[in-house]
Amino acid sequence: MRHKNVEIVAEKCALQEILDVIGGKWAMSIIYALFSGTRRFSELERMIPGINTRMLVKELKNLTQNGIVTRKVYPTVPPTVEYTLTPKGRKLEPSIAELYKWGQEYVK
Amino acid sequence: MRHKNVEIVAEKCALQEILDVIGGKWAMSIIYALFSGTRRFSELERMIPGINTRMLVKELKNLTQNGIVTRKVYPTVPPTVEYTLTPKGRKLEPSIAELYKWGQEYVK
Repeated sequence: MRHKNVEIVAEKCALQEILDVIGGKWAMSIIYALFSGTRRFSELERMIPGINTRMLVKELKNLTQNGIVTRKVYPTVPPTVEYTLTPKGRKLEPSIAELYKWGQEYVK
Repeated sequence: MRHKNVEIVAEKCALQEILDVIGGKWAMSIIYALFSGTRRFSELERMIPGINTRMLVKELKNLTQNGIVTRKVYPTVPPTVEYTLTPKGRKLEPSIAELYKWGQEYVK
């Protein structure tokens, strides 16, 4: 019993770290939007209702730093910036799909 | 193309609502702790490193109001308070298990 509790504690720490990476208010919505493929900044802005430019910039920076999203800039005028999920980001698909399924059954 | 985007937008709204329910800093850790069965307040406090009493009270209240956890009080002195996942809460198991699996592969 005591031993099992210790294990659970360690697993809980891991969940905290996971949430530091993807638990931001908008992170999952952005990841979800990118499941359908590479998107420009302006497309993401349109796809995610309620997000503002500042928040989208901030969250994309966070996701890029955490290796979930890559950012590619094309030297057009004005510059075109595209975002794509990394393999690490793409592997979140089952988790987010399960969460979404749960939400469809239970939220509202 | 346009039509697909509109769908994605609607799904994103749902994700926002889901995160309102279970996206709190400690919500998933508490749910995870309760997968192993009914727990007393003091047990949860010990199982979740870094949480303080005030935060645990607040998050359990939120989870109870959202129908994810039930709270049962026994008239002992001092009162014994036990928390259990509802069927709705229990159905989060696949999502959180997937997230945890992802974290084990990619976080740290």
